[in-house]
Amino acid sequence: MAYNERTLKKAAAADLENLRIVLVRSRNPLNIGAAARVMSNFGAFHLRVVTPFEKAFREAVSAVGAAALLAAAEEFDALGDAVRDCSLVVGTTAIGHRELQHEFYLLDEAAKRIRRKLGVGRVAVLFGSEKTGLSNHDLSHCHWLLRIPTREEHRSMNLAQAVGVVICELSRGASRVTGRNKVRSAADMGTVDRLAAALLEALQVSGYIHRRSAASAEEKLRRMLLRFEFSATDAEVLLGMIHKILWKLNSQK
Amino acid sequence: MAYNERTLKKAAAADLENLRIVLVRSRNPLNIGAAARVMSNFGAFHLRVVTPFEKAFREAVSAVGAAALLAAAEEFDALGDAVRDCSLVVGTTAIGHRELQHEFYLLDEAAKRIRRKLGVGRVAVLFGSEKTGLSNHDLSHCHWLLRIPTREEHRSMNLAQAVGVVICELSRGASRVTGRNKVRSAADMGTVDRLAAALLEALQVSGYIHRRSAASAEEKLRRMLLRFEFSATDAEVLLGMIHKILWKLNSQK
Repeated sequence: MAYNERTLKKAAAADLENLRIVLVRSRNPLNIGAAARVMSNFGAFHLRVVTPFEKAFREAVSAVGAAALLAAAEEFDALGDAVRDCSLVVGTTAIGHRELQHEFYLLDEAAKRIRRKLGVGRVAVLFGSEKTGLSNHDLSHCHWLLRIPTREEHRSMNLAQAVGVVICELSRGASRVTGRNKVRSAADMGTVDRLAAALLEALQVSGYIHRRSAASAEEKLRRMLLRFEFSATDAEVLLGMIHKILWKLNSQK
Repeated sequence: MAYNERTLKKAAAADLENLRIVLVRSRNPLNIGAAARVMSNFGAFHLRVVTPFEKAFREAVSAVGAAALLAAAEEFDALGDAVRDCSLVVGTTAIGHRELQHEFYLLDEAAKRIRRKLGVGRVAVLFGSEKTGLSNHDLSHCHWLLRIPTREEHRSMNLAQAVGVVICELSRGASRVTGRNKVRSAADMGTVDRLAAALLEALQVSGYIHRRSAASAEEKLRRMLLRFEFSATDAEVLLGMIHKILWKLNSQK
């Protein structure tokens, strides 16, 4: 196994306490619910909503497991109020002509910058309405823009999906999990040799290898077996199988 | 400005042509549609569906901009058929007790491994049903599992969201893939299946496995064979060996 449970806990411990996800003029309560759910999945608990089209956003139905998050969501009548306590405001966008006057960063670089700021103050990440995105006025509140690198031919993402990939990217790395911690111990050479010998005998008995060419066949066989990088357990299981097959082959001579 | 348009084009040019997204027993056409849309956003065009709960999956309504992708989706009655031409099969999971016997990697490490394989063969990434995820039988088709690092307290993601974050991660930097020609092409699942079937028969004939327990033995066997990550050549050689042994076993009955 590549990771154990303790590593996973660490991986999920990225601190998004200072993050505010701000949905501006969202029209579809399903999207608000789905955004809340994915926020909860990754440990981002603070949702703000600015003049949602559908006032009854708290009734969003698809927020499996995120009811508390939705209940605690804050509603604002103006974007300015929703970001007043934040020290960095980032707009997300598919980048059209309107947005090109703003500085922007692609998702991974943007996430790094946001994570650095999260250590020292609140950061608001804004998502515009499904229809029109963020307006010029909204953009005027932003320090810079975040662009998710979707294809030029199909830029526009579902709102909740956009929230999902941004949150997922932000949640990574606060406690960077690297390297794999392989728990299965590798088979030692002695076991591989026994495996090679048993398989060789089975191949001789069944006529796949002739006695004359056995020496070179044994080398090829061992090289092949080594390529499989058996774990100790798998090698023992395989050895048991081949012994049994060999026993049967020999008993029937 | 941090990036210009040319940089963006490069960023979106990740080659996911060899990727197959496989939705297994999906229940909700909305999810299938949303998955298709986010696939299109990031340039992954090949969707496969295994026994979707809702047969009318092509009518999925939320696939803004992804109608062509949905129309080209392939439908299968069995997971084995859906992954037969793939040389790496990865299951996505929230990791419960059932999955802990499988090797797994967190999203970023998993994505690196998948991108490396995409240069040499097809890779299937499986997503289970909304209710139950992937079954033990499904998992027995997987080389290893991918875990999206959601919180322990709220692991379960919306299906389309899970597809979204995986695709987004895969689409990054695929153009950085190097060392293609050093990699030996990997055995496809069809070959591994034939290998498992032949070995299973040899083990039955020799009495290692009893017919009663053949089903669970087959799953275990396939899992073990997948761990070895055979090259195409080694798999063929091994298959030849086992066929010869099997022939000898059967000829002596």
